[in-house]
Amino acid sequence: MQEVQIGIIGFGTVGAGVAEALLKNGGLIAKRTGFLPVLKKIADIDVTRDRGVALPKGILTTDYKEITDSDEIQIVVELVGGKTFAKDVILRALRNGKSVVTANKALLAAYGKELFAVAAENGADIGFEASVGGGIPCIKAIREGLVCNHVKSILGILNGTCNYILTKMEKEHAAFEDVLRAAQANGYAEANPALDVDGFDTAHKAAVLGSLVFGRWFTSEDFQVEGIRNVTTMDIESAGAMGYKIKLLAILKEHEGKVQIGVHPALVPAHSLLGSVNDVYNAVWVDADVVGKTMYYGRGAGRQATASAVVADITDIGLNLVNRCARRIPAFPQYDDYMEMASEDSYNGRFYIRLQVKDIPGVMSAVTGILARHDISLASVNQKESEEDDNVSMILLTHRANEGRLHAAIQEIAKLPEILSSPVVFHIEDAV
Amino acid sequence: MQEVQIGIIGFGTVGAGVAEALLKNGGLIAKRTGFLPVLKKIADIDVTRDRGVALPKGILTTDYKEITDSDEIQIVVELVGGKTFAKDVILRALRNGKSVVTANKALLAAYGKELFAVAAENGADIGFEASVGGGIPCIKAIREGLVCNHVKSILGILNGTCNYILTKMEKEHAAFEDVLRAAQANGYAEANPALDVDGFDTAHKAAVLGSLVFGRWFTSEDFQVEGIRNVTTMDIESAGAMGYKIKLLAILKEHEGKVQIGVHPALVPAHSLLGSVNDVYNAVWVDADVVGKTMYYGRGAGRQATASAVVADITDIGLNLVNRCARRIPAFPQYDDYMEMASEDSYNGRFYIRLQVKDIPGVMSAVTGILARHDISLASVNQKESEEDDNVSMILLTHRANEGRLHAAIQEIAKLPEILSSPVVFHIEDAV
Repeated sequence: MQEVQIGIIGFGTVGAGVAEALLKNGGLIAKRTGFLPVLKKIADIDVTRDRGVALPKGILTTDYKEITDSDEIQIVVELVGGKTFAKDVILRALRNGKSVVTANKALLAAYGKELFAVAAENGADIGFEASVGGGIPCIKAIREGLVCNHVKSILGILNGTCNYILTKMEKEHAAFEDVLRAAQANGYAEANPALDVDGFDTAHKAAVLGSLVFGRWFTSEDFQVEGIRNVTTMDIESAGAMGYKIKLLAILKEHEGKVQIGVHPALVPAHSLLGSVNDVYNAVWVDADVVGKTMYYGRGAGRQATASAVVADITDIGLNLVNRCARRIPAFPQYDDYMEMASEDSYNGRFYIRLQVKDIPGVMSAVTGILARHDISLASVNQKESEEDDNVSMILLTHRANEGRLHAAIQEIAKLPEILSSPVVFHIEDAV
Repeated sequence: MQEVQIGIIGFGTVGAGVAEALLKNGGLIAKRTGFLPVLKKIADIDVTRDRGVALPKGILTTDYKEITDSDEIQIVVELVGGKTFAKDVILRALRNGKSVVTANKALLAAYGKELFAVAAENGADIGFEASVGGGIPCIKAIREGLVCNHVKSILGILNGTCNYILTKMEKEHAAFEDVLRAAQANGYAEANPALDVDGFDTAHKAAVLGSLVFGRWFTSEDFQVEGIRNVTTMDIESAGAMGYKIKLLAILKEHEGKVQIGVHPALVPAHSLLGSVNDVYNAVWVDADVVGKTMYYGRGAGRQATASAVVADITDIGLNLVNRCARRIPAFPQYDDYMEMASEDSYNGRFYIRLQVKDIPGVMSAVTGILARHDISLASVNQKESEEDDNVSMILLTHRANEGRLHAAIQEIAKLPEILSSPVVFHIEDAV
């Protein structure tokens, strides 16, 4: 039986899961593939804390160079996170001719172009299945399973923390801040939740997906990113009454050679598949020109689920090594006909608008008048009384409208003296 | 640019879709993979009918041996269907050293073991993504994406015709026969619908999935197969009132080294993801030991969707050819520790029972008494009046019960003089 030697750098939650999966199911992988992945070394600054994995002796080290510079180790698994040390580790491993597996979406979104260029120079593979959708094999499904398809759009629920918070807000009629605090207490949200709830983590994943399907590199700097802090229980309940759920979506669309990518809270039909994705689960919904609509669903994070994707990459690269076909599938090929980013005002879609207004005659007329002048027609208008006396919420759903015109109208509406706080606008995605 | 020459045998619906996809998006595949798949020949007995694809001159032939015996063609795509000529074509191609792509689940379910052995002898690959789930890349996702997982269970909605009929029955409150007739009229069902509605097509796909994940060959002869002819609008409405939908499921489960595979109409929670899969769409829900629950969704049939999966296989095998790594992933490896089939009476689950009974005192007591004696406890009992006078339907939902004991009880109940027609039993799958 051929063996492939593996080194893991970073023995945190996911690192422990990967070690456990390799030790538990390495024999199964060998039966299925003909080679045995062997866990040779794990490097971490802390080699004493118990991670609940019974490791063979001599595996732990504090010196990551025992992995990146090893003569025996062929695949280096980077699970330290962050964009500085992790980048150094990966570059060093690649330059030593090792292939790399990483779950580090922040790093790929920022430095993917550079990292994959160094991999190419050194004849090495980089596996990144675990960087998007946790355990869901969505990178493989999209890159290989849909290889003959132009992707028209992707809608992704890609952050388990946000989906957990939105699900809890809906089911328990609880405010964002209260649910976030509870999620932090039980480990579903970080002490500093900005990466998740402000949409940046979803944006990193959107950058990876966009770069994968559209034939050029995108970074998360290239597009609009909104998180879920503006979503209120009233929004969730208003959406629910109209047959929608609110999800934080990575939205990627291609139209006539122009690409639009963004991260936005969005209304999706409650009984659609995306609307049925709850709690910490993730889903990637793809509409493509040959296959039509497909969706991939599973746990978006967590020790075991993420480990499943990391070990799938280890196995894929191991098969390349034992079959002497490294870089069998080119990573992030750049096409001749690079896609351009569409300008914001070229996007057409439907929108949900919430306005906090003074309850005096003429407000509705002023608001709808401004929208009409900007060519925004309305599908529904609801006014909800607040507990405070002269304060009402106005919920508007537009028909298909141009986003540039909508924003111009919203800016004008925001200046009306009757408007009490910044207007809130969410996308509506009906096609799922 | 390297080229790989492709021949298609069978220019029907899917054959035309594959030709179209290769001609339209072959250049895209080349950009993504570095090789160009070239459509060299298409063989069919009918080379005159217009399939709506503009083919280059000289591609069509009536002689399939121009493909199987060609010196240039490296990948043979079998799309003739059936189990006789299709088998001969595939064997001839394999023995000539060609790799093969097929969507033929009936053939794989019957002769997979033989075909893959011949492929191994000849160093050839067989791609079969399109045999299960149409365009959904579920074979790739499960085989490669979940490679480090023991699969605990699979629940599959794998037949678009059945799912279309069940969806229509629910939405239009229409009887099975009426919906079937309409489906035949608009092309969603075959003139002879037995393969679909009696569950055999689903069973072929279950045999392929079972053989893939459990390390031994299964044929659809190995397990129980029920279709949807016994599903009535009353069943659908009763299930709906209790929060369930009825789907035809391929059910594959492993427990302590024993495997249970069957095809059954089953109740799934209405708001679950599987319950949200409607019309001709398919879905494969998988529970596995490392990744947990994942699901794969898309069009289960049709010219374009199936073509997407066939071309994905062509691309995968093409990448093996240009990288000189044929058979990079062993097909259907047989493990040392073959899984055994579990006996029917070892299965435990929940069940839906419908009895047609005379509306006279004491029937309920007789029925529930028999169930109690067989250790079957009930979660709910509903009695529904029929339009006919002395005839009622009794709908029983069991708690978790042993299937062997359930069948013994049902046999006893069927003999009661008050029972007017054969009892109907469906599975309940709550865990999705």
